[in-house]
Amino acid sequence: MADESKITPVVLCGGNGTRLWPRSKPCAPKPFLRLVGDTTLFEEAIGRCAGEEFAPPVVVTGHKHRDLVEGQLPQGSECRLIIEPEGKNTAAAIALAAYRLPEDAVMLVCPSDHHIADVEAFRASAFQAAALAREGWLVAFGIVPTRPETGYGYIKQGEPLAGGYRVDKFVEKPDRARAEEFLAQGGYSWNGGIFAFRAGTFIEELSRHRPALANAVRKAVDSGREDGRRFLPGADAFAQIEGESVDYAVMEETDHAAMVPAAMGWSDIGNWSAVREAREHDAQGNVVNGRADLLDCRDVLVESDGPRVSLVGLENVIVVVDGDEILVTSSAGAASVGKLKGPAGG
Amino acid sequence: MADESKITPVVLCGGNGTRLWPRSKPCAPKPFLRLVGDTTLFEEAIGRCAGEEFAPPVVVTGHKHRDLVEGQLPQGSECRLIIEPEGKNTAAAIALAAYRLPEDAVMLVCPSDHHIADVEAFRASAFQAAALAREGWLVAFGIVPTRPETGYGYIKQGEPLAGGYRVDKFVEKPDRARAEEFLAQGGYSWNGGIFAFRAGTFIEELSRHRPALANAVRKAVDSGREDGRRFLPGADAFAQIEGESVDYAVMEETDHAAMVPAAMGWSDIGNWSAVREAREHDAQGNVVNGRADLLDCRDVLVESDGPRVSLVGLENVIVVVDGDEILVTSSAGAASVGKLKGPAGG
Repeated sequence: MADESKITPVVLCGGNGTRLWPRSKPCAPKPFLRLVGDTTLFEEAIGRCAGEEFAPPVVVTGHKHRDLVEGQLPQGSECRLIIEPEGKNTAAAIALAAYRLPEDAVMLVCPSDHHIADVEAFRASAFQAAALAREGWLVAFGIVPTRPETGYGYIKQGEPLAGGYRVDKFVEKPDRARAEEFLAQGGYSWNGGIFAFRAGTFIEELSRHRPALANAVRKAVDSGREDGRRFLPGADAFAQIEGESVDYAVMEETDHAAMVPAAMGWSDIGNWSAVREAREHDAQGNVVNGRADLLDCRDVLVESDGPRVSLVGLENVIVVVDGDEILVTSSAGAASVGKLKGPAGG
Repeated sequence: MADESKITPVVLCGGNGTRLWPRSKPCAPKPFLRLVGDTTLFEEAIGRCAGEEFAPPVVVTGHKHRDLVEGQLPQGSECRLIIEPEGKNTAAAIALAAYRLPEDAVMLVCPSDHHIADVEAFRASAFQAAALAREGWLVAFGIVPTRPETGYGYIKQGEPLAGGYRVDKFVEKPDRARAEEFLAQGGYSWNGGIFAFRAGTFIEELSRHRPALANAVRKAVDSGREDGRRFLPGADAFAQIEGESVDYAVMEETDHAAMVPAAMGWSDIGNWSAVREAREHDAQGNVVNGRADLLDCRDVLVESDGPRVSLVGLENVIVVVDGDEILVTSSAGAASVGKLKGPAGG
């Protein structure tokens, strides 16, 4: 790398998703599950940013996931933790880290609930993004779309920069017809929540567009305390923070939004169908984790924590066994798992 | 009834089917499971032949199912049991009962692994068959076919008799084209293994066509002993019996085979798909037994002995949970369940 300063990964680690029920639960949410391979999505996120180009990571997480985070850090990690008393969305989480870092630190904001198959492509985009960040840009990864997805926000790219593009605009989740138009037209990419910027730039832009939010986070940091590798923001000040996403609070407001395209086998592992797609499968497209016996099956996923699952004559069926809960669905049905009684605690 | 002598139900109760795995097991085979409603198929078989037209039943069963049989008999039943030391197929089982009954007793041979929805139709056919049996016919129930089934043997009806027909011939399981021809042509019915004949007639015909088998059974009866309601054939003599089906040993050989047509909602509950069809279902065609949560499902069957089964966006899927085994299949796949490792004890 030409520049001498290192990139600081800021790994966001929270959420209580219901779409991977019954495996994901409030006490063990998606980032901490071994969904795709032998490593968890959190471990992947940490591992992607290892190496001499990177400073030790900062993980922003909640009180109840602190032990999971520390248990899944690599041995000897110099990772620092910021423990939020409660979830206040991404603008506050990123601002906490920004206030704790030197102004010139280049932050690489990484959600930890995504899978990225091509780590080299990720790193190449990260270095491009970091270079733009050092020039004062707030850089979003623009994930090259592979289907007309209606579940994500899009980024429309503007005029080219060295190693990226200005952002023309951020686009809310489109309907199917518009998503197809975006895909056909080109120049649109998915907003996967991965960003790079200087800590100082982020604070400046947040203070300009959301002064109350910036001020509340600063007070929480000023009134916080360190406890070994952990930093605990002041709870009273933290409670005053208004939760807002970094997209709304900063990225859509700033005049300095840029993007780098990233084609890196990204998946948000948003439901069990996405888990199946991200996994290695056999010649029949089947994916098995646990005890299973398949007969005349294609494109099935079996996840079992104990009982044997015997499948006969099925295509495109997903079976997940977790303790006293058994989920059976299809690729299409997987998106509706959150509507079941189980994920709601019923 | 015109005739004064009663009909003696001879209920055959054995088998170690694998097609309803994981619910059916060697220690709890199909007749003893509550598959269709609150009563087991064995209880149904006994209940169908209750009333003043019938003598107390004789149940022929194996040593290991003796307790299940006695546990499922109605209170105060005068049922007698014949306990076979080992399974020797239907000709021997029926012959054991025939030798233990008066010559003039009309036997109604009833397998106990079938479901019959229309009990009145069954009884009407039973009375017709008994009348023919008293005249010296060996009478098979000819189950009116409702589909071109290739899994059953067929009976071709011959010239009419009072209340039935002569049997033209018994036909082995046909291929699909022939089964469709049978259905289109009419005059063919399924052989469901339900028969009526005088005990004396049966022994005469067995002795004529299978003298060694008849002789071996007679010796097993002569060397047997009574133990309360149970009769235990002599084990040494019994071991000499050559196992053969009543169809081959007697019905296909005799010149006095007759049949009565029976349209009575018969199902052999041959696999989980047949269980689903025989059960009461809701407006979406779904059948649930146990804890389940269905979302956007049609024509599914859920059987669970404990865990909650949550199903999303599925059609025509069968889920059976039994202890540490979970079976998931489709209507078509249900016929192949016996080929899995589980039913083979693997």
